Amino acid sequence: MNTIGYHYIVEAAGCDPAVLGSPDRMRDLLVQAAKVADMGIRTSYFYRFSPSGVSGVVIISESHLSVHTWPEQRYAALDVFLCGEEGKPEAAIRFILNELASTDAHVTEIKRGIQDEDAYTHAMVTWDETFNKSST
Amino acid sequence: MNTIGYHYIVEAAGCDPAVLGSPDRMRDLLVQAAKVADMGIRTSYFYRFSPSGVSGVVIISESHLSVHTWPEQRYAALDVFLCGEEGKPEAAIRFILNELASTDAHVTEIKRGIQDEDAYTHAMVTWDETFNKSST
Repeated sequence: MNTIGYHYIVEAAGCDPAVLGSPDRMRDLLVQAAKVADMGIRTSYFYRFSPSGVSGVVIISESHLSVHTWPEQRYAALDVFLCGEEGKPEAAIRFILNELASTDAHVTEIKRGIQDEDAYTHAMVTWDETFNKSST
Repeated sequence: MNTIGYHYIVEAAGCDPAVLGSPDRMRDLLVQAAKVADMGIRTSYFYRFSPSGVSGVVIISESHLSVHTWPEQRYAALDVFLCGEEGKPEAAIRFILNELASTDAHVTEIKRGIQDEDAYTHAMVTWDETFNKSST
């Protein structure tokens, strides 16, 4: 069995606080993102934490999406973990960042489960993205 | 509100396949680990995927633990994400690796939600651990 997974760690800045503060909207967004990425959804769990942030997880086959949000800071800590070569995790991230109207994202892609003799390791690449938004 | 979080990405090798293959044992283990780390548990969800792996998440306040296992490879991809300075994430990881009887772990600690002008970034440090197990 292939243990390789692709795990994207995203710090999303400048996001719409109305979306970040709503468990229902965040759930809809991450569930839609999983569908955009051709991931099979098992279940999801989202809740509001004090005073106004949201935490949530979408469980997909052998994989997951998770988010923790701070609406006051317009910030979301997003994870997309996808095992195997199926699915389109970068499409999921692009969809989420666009729906959140994020202005800046700091992304690390971690290739997980790389076999190295008797152990496993991971490899990382990091980049920044800036989105030019027309002011509304 | 403090956006800083500590996210541990762990590749655990040489684990006990009987534990890795049991959703109930993996759930018990991660729930116990959350308690060891003084994390308040909201909910958990674990399931077996074909042919014998387990995926699971424990949702804790503003944070989560997740795992995906490959018993045939004695391998588990483990994440512990804890927001704020409360809790003891390294204690949780040590507990899990010990209960899994892992022989080797490759760990990256990611400090998330570091404010950098209008954006957020993260910082990483990586290390390997080898555990000397007496053969049984």
